[in-house]
Amino acid sequence: MRATTIHGPRDLRFGDQPDPRLIDPTDAIVRVTAACVCGSDLWYFRGVNEFEPFRIGHEFVGVVEEVGSEVRSVRPGDFVIAPFTYSDNTCPHCRAGIQTACVNKGNYGLPDANGHLVDGGQGEAVRVPFADGTLVATREQPDDTMIPSLLACSDVMGTGWHAAVAANVREGDTVVVVGDGAVGLCGVLAAARRGADRVIAMSRHEPRQRVAKEFGATDLVAQRGEEGVAAVLDLTDGVGADAVLECVGTGQSMDTAIAAARPGATVGFVGVPHGVDLPIGQMFSRNVGVAGGVAPARQYLPTLRDQVLAGAINPGLVFDLELPLEQVAEAYAAMDERRAIKTLLRP
Amino acid sequence: MRATTIHGPRDLRFGDQPDPRLIDPTDAIVRVTAACVCGSDLWYFRGVNEFEPFRIGHEFVGVVEEVGSEVRSVRPGDFVIAPFTYSDNTCPHCRAGIQTACVNKGNYGLPDANGHLVDGGQGEAVRVPFADGTLVATREQPDDTMIPSLLACSDVMGTGWHAAVAANVREGDTVVVVGDGAVGLCGVLAAARRGADRVIAMSRHEPRQRVAKEFGATDLVAQRGEEGVAAVLDLTDGVGADAVLECVGTGQSMDTAIAAARPGATVGFVGVPHGVDLPIGQMFSRNVGVAGGVAPARQYLPTLRDQVLAGAINPGLVFDLELPLEQVAEAYAAMDERRAIKTLLRP
Repeated sequence: MRATTIHGPRDLRFGDQPDPRLIDPTDAIVRVTAACVCGSDLWYFRGVNEFEPFRIGHEFVGVVEEVGSEVRSVRPGDFVIAPFTYSDNTCPHCRAGIQTACVNKGNYGLPDANGHLVDGGQGEAVRVPFADGTLVATREQPDDTMIPSLLACSDVMGTGWHAAVAANVREGDTVVVVGDGAVGLCGVLAAARRGADRVIAMSRHEPRQRVAKEFGATDLVAQRGEEGVAAVLDLTDGVGADAVLECVGTGQSMDTAIAAARPGATVGFVGVPHGVDLPIGQMFSRNVGVAGGVAPARQYLPTLRDQVLAGAINPGLVFDLELPLEQVAEAYAAMDERRAIKTLLRP
Repeated sequence: MRATTIHGPRDLRFGDQPDPRLIDPTDAIVRVTAACVCGSDLWYFRGVNEFEPFRIGHEFVGVVEEVGSEVRSVRPGDFVIAPFTYSDNTCPHCRAGIQTACVNKGNYGLPDANGHLVDGGQGEAVRVPFADGTLVATREQPDDTMIPSLLACSDVMGTGWHAAVAANVREGDTVVVVGDGAVGLCGVLAAARRGADRVIAMSRHEPRQRVAKEFGATDLVAQRGEEGVAAVLDLTDGVGADAVLECVGTGQSMDTAIAAARPGATVGFVGVPHGVDLPIGQMFSRNVGVAGGVAPARQYLPTLRDQVLAGAINPGLVFDLELPLEQVAEAYAAMDERRAIKTLLRP
């Protein structure tokens, strides 16, 4: 099969790799229908994270080709969504809904606990460990038009949803979403879907503003930093937001999120933190909490799948570019240069 | 009247001051029945906080002597509990239960918004601004044996309760409480009262361990830092606590609290932060949230008052020394030297 390897900053290679085969009895082999590029993949592409060459990609949907002898919940022919990490879904952390802390968790593209490579998602096929605990199937083969939205549930929609859960968005709330990447946009969708009366999207990019509005944003704030906070306070009679979703991960975005939160509110944060220094004194004096982290997409997959299939949410709108998988390098470049919000890849 | 002024580190003076009188129509004059020394007062006593001389003390109960023309909810003769800050209880932040962020909030012992001194609590009488929004009365004069527990609701019990609320303690939970000061002990009581199955108190001082057990601690961990975390993990089959109450405010106590929390849990923090640097990377990877801050004691006062009067909680046990008010300097010294957990003062 063919798959993507990242060798260094801006050095993506798409080429032949060994076909995945079953190793453990809990494995499944998934033939990839669609994959995509994550904002966090760009940290490698840009050379911000140091790394050894590895098989990149962790968001994909596909069809089960083969399963190990102990796999019970999926079978060959099933269409499945893979959350962006694998997990057994039976350990205490999984049972508590934090599958990203699973005692058997692991990442695509790297060796598993026994040292056997788990394929990356930006390839034609993947060996998925703990298939029962990881993969979520649809009842039937979904219509092709559903593929982008189902694929979005593997990461960005689950992550935006997690931000809204962590921020404790409730019906009638005024919610601020910091960040207009695919995750931030899905955060807007999650907040609206969870009953927020008002969703203030902080975005300055016209194509993203359009998706934000489509997803339920009622207000747009183009300013950043202190000006952005002032705009939010202005929109909320000086009170601040009932809940804030921090979907970027920089020091400035976190400062904005905390300052935009009303006293007693929670900032749900899902942006991978880079250079974030939490203002504990302000959090204390204003009673602003910070909760969230790496999203347990697996927890939310069944409900998000059902919402997609029912037409209640359409997170696939975040994909504004579709390319054949062999053009993966261009997929990264388009996102890096902000020519695309998110790129969908078809093998 | 006589009242306490702090002039510098270890320089407390108890002496004559002008009798408080009504200034605003929303004021009440309260004759103090009992007051006490707060752990945060010790930061001044020890010279950790810089300050100009001021009338110290912010925890007291007493009897209303006189009220302004607009006061409706309390009247002369009422026994009242004063939360440790005053608030109007009508602004948006008060209505959301965060009275410590009231747009009209203020501190005892300092000038109010109009520049008029508000008396400190460690004196014989206090002018209380926004009496309707601040004071909580009992239906009848409480029995003298109830005074310590009602006084505890003015600050430490409300603060321990806030830690448990912020940490989202639920029935059946395993809860860790970091800190065995009066607030930590009240945190133990709050966690137990809110239905925790197991309350692990981190305490190495025998008299405090005894109160912790009285308050419902099921386990005691004497170790601190990494050893303390290891002991908690040992007690929880490696999983960690469902909720953690951080009741100290140092870097070490916060690190311990976060490390003792299971993935997905929240650390409810109420210790005034001194040198706390939140480990955002660990919070992200383990999905451990941090929420809390300066406790809106006013929010919890009605329920805590009722629980005290019903005999359901007895937070007054944290007072292990009682002195006449004129011995206020000894009250501080005893707490500073850890000869007392908390000192009650009677004018």
